[in-house]
Amino acid sequence: MQTATNKKIVVLGGGTGTFTVLSGLKYHPVNLSAVVSIADDGGSTGILRDELGVLPPGDIRQCLVALSNGDQVLRDLFNYRFTQGGLDGHNFGNIFLSALEKITGDPLAAVREANRILNVKGRVIPVSARATDLYAELEDATVVKGEHAIDKPSSNRAAIRRCFLSPDVPANPEALEAIRGADIVVMGPGDLFTSLIPVLLVKDIAQAMAQSRAKKVLVINLTSKNGQTQGYKASNFCEVVSRHILPASIDVCILNSSKPSDEVALRYVEAGDHVIEDDLDVGSMQIWRGDLLSDDIVLTVPGDRLARSLLRHDPDKLAAAVLAAAGVA
Amino acid sequence: MQTATNKKIVVLGGGTGTFTVLSGLKYHPVNLSAVVSIADDGGSTGILRDELGVLPPGDIRQCLVALSNGDQVLRDLFNYRFTQGGLDGHNFGNIFLSALEKITGDPLAAVREANRILNVKGRVIPVSARATDLYAELEDATVVKGEHAIDKPSSNRAAIRRCFLSPDVPANPEALEAIRGADIVVMGPGDLFTSLIPVLLVKDIAQAMAQSRAKKVLVINLTSKNGQTQGYKASNFCEVVSRHILPASIDVCILNSSKPSDEVALRYVEAGDHVIEDDLDVGSMQIWRGDLLSDDIVLTVPGDRLARSLLRHDPDKLAAAVLAAAGVA
Repeated sequence: MQTATNKKIVVLGGGTGTFTVLSGLKYHPVNLSAVVSIADDGGSTGILRDELGVLPPGDIRQCLVALSNGDQVLRDLFNYRFTQGGLDGHNFGNIFLSALEKITGDPLAAVREANRILNVKGRVIPVSARATDLYAELEDATVVKGEHAIDKPSSNRAAIRRCFLSPDVPANPEALEAIRGADIVVMGPGDLFTSLIPVLLVKDIAQAMAQSRAKKVLVINLTSKNGQTQGYKASNFCEVVSRHILPASIDVCILNSSKPSDEVALRYVEAGDHVIEDDLDVGSMQIWRGDLLSDDIVLTVPGDRLARSLLRHDPDKLAAAVLAAAGVA
Repeated sequence: MQTATNKKIVVLGGGTGTFTVLSGLKYHPVNLSAVVSIADDGGSTGILRDELGVLPPGDIRQCLVALSNGDQVLRDLFNYRFTQGGLDGHNFGNIFLSALEKITGDPLAAVREANRILNVKGRVIPVSARATDLYAELEDATVVKGEHAIDKPSSNRAAIRRCFLSPDVPANPEALEAIRGADIVVMGPGDLFTSLIPVLLVKDIAQAMAQSRAKKVLVINLTSKNGQTQGYKASNFCEVVSRHILPASIDVCILNSSKPSDEVALRYVEAGDHVIEDDLDVGSMQIWRGDLLSDDIVLTVPGDRLARSLLRHDPDKLAAAVLAAAGVA
């Protein structure tokens, strides 16, 4: 087994799953990059994107905070959300990134400056310098436009058949370079169709993965998400991701083997979701199984579905699993 | 003559005049503080103050930028003003200070954090931890409420008889301490009734000046401002300030002795203003006269009165004058 020191790890995605895996990997002596979605269109991010024409800041901001070693007050500011007046609902970090893009006149330069100001361990890299929109074509042939609309939990919506981006934006060369030079590429956990797939859909990203000698690691989600992955088992996650990274392929799949309590599992079922069943068998890819559950008691967030916060990956366990599964430690 | 090294200089005010004197003094080896108005209620500052209940950030922000030795990008951000969408008209630095106050829950702690993050040379100190409103009682007995309304140029408004603050806010102890311990206190240049007087009106500020062994220096404005100081000569500035700092008194008065061109002077007259006449005679206070004019050709700012930007104090000349007038160099 090789040592993890200076291994180049690239995490693909955006959102809370990516935040979790970055937060854990940050404490290892590795060379970290996050290649982040630019298709978000909801909330504060969507408003700033529409009104100011900036790259959607939300996913970038979350990754910057996850990897920041900078001033604690600046990190707290980046997470602050206004709750009154004309700024109500706006996240300060989103406003910061938007202003930075306005004064630099260049979305990639803005993110580089933010990396520097927040003293980021590694690099946060937008997957493209141009914003785009995610579309989902459902099994009943209807098309849903926008990450935010697709992301809305919906128990009576048909399953997603395929997703696509429009316009078709070019990849950020820095993202391609990071992937090609990586030792490990991490996909997931997180919302499959609204965090990971929007990165994989950007032109040349899959090709760069095929050109990379990196171990491609997929972390399977703990639970389904209504409207996206209802009915999914572990093999369904593998199938969808495999299809999106062709001609590359998944090398290792990481699964939680720790059984949640019946009470918690029931709460998910009541909310129209379920714990993901491990149906993976011996095949072309390796499988890493182990306890990945967070022990934290999570208070529910107002406005969130109750179930959302009950089962979560533990950042430290997950980071150790990624390194072990990729054969480094 | 004493050396300027480590002399404690406190500048009172807010606005562009204070920005100018701080920008010049910053390059001298002195110990600088700015004690800043908290009565602003216009524009971005007024909206944030009203909607979020924060200390008016505008004057504080300008002083922070003047004294910042920090990251150039952060300084540029602090000056950036949004020009589109729901954030239109908002200054980023104002939003930054407002968010800081929200996460610290304490306006003074927020400004201290901002001093640290912007690596301020010296200190920017709000004159009070509580916002207040400035009122002007005119010679015709009408009362105008709010710094922003008072500050509006008006050629047919009666002259200001007196100003007062309501509510009557307590001084920030840090401001009193800075004034009591100062070697030099600088008042002006800048809008007399809407930048300097709101600081002097805060309870105990005048008393702290009387308790201080500091040389009290008044910098006379170059030109009048319609609605505030129309018809004023140098002696009028001295009278108004003297009245507001009782039982303290002005030790030295600084005047520009360089004559602007007839063309420039005429432009002011056309706009209802005039160059301030030097009518000061030998009296109880010292007078320092010298060339203080900026040579910069100033482009007019859209929306500004043409005349406003024509005549300005040069920051370096002004700083040298302050030190010389106070007997240090």
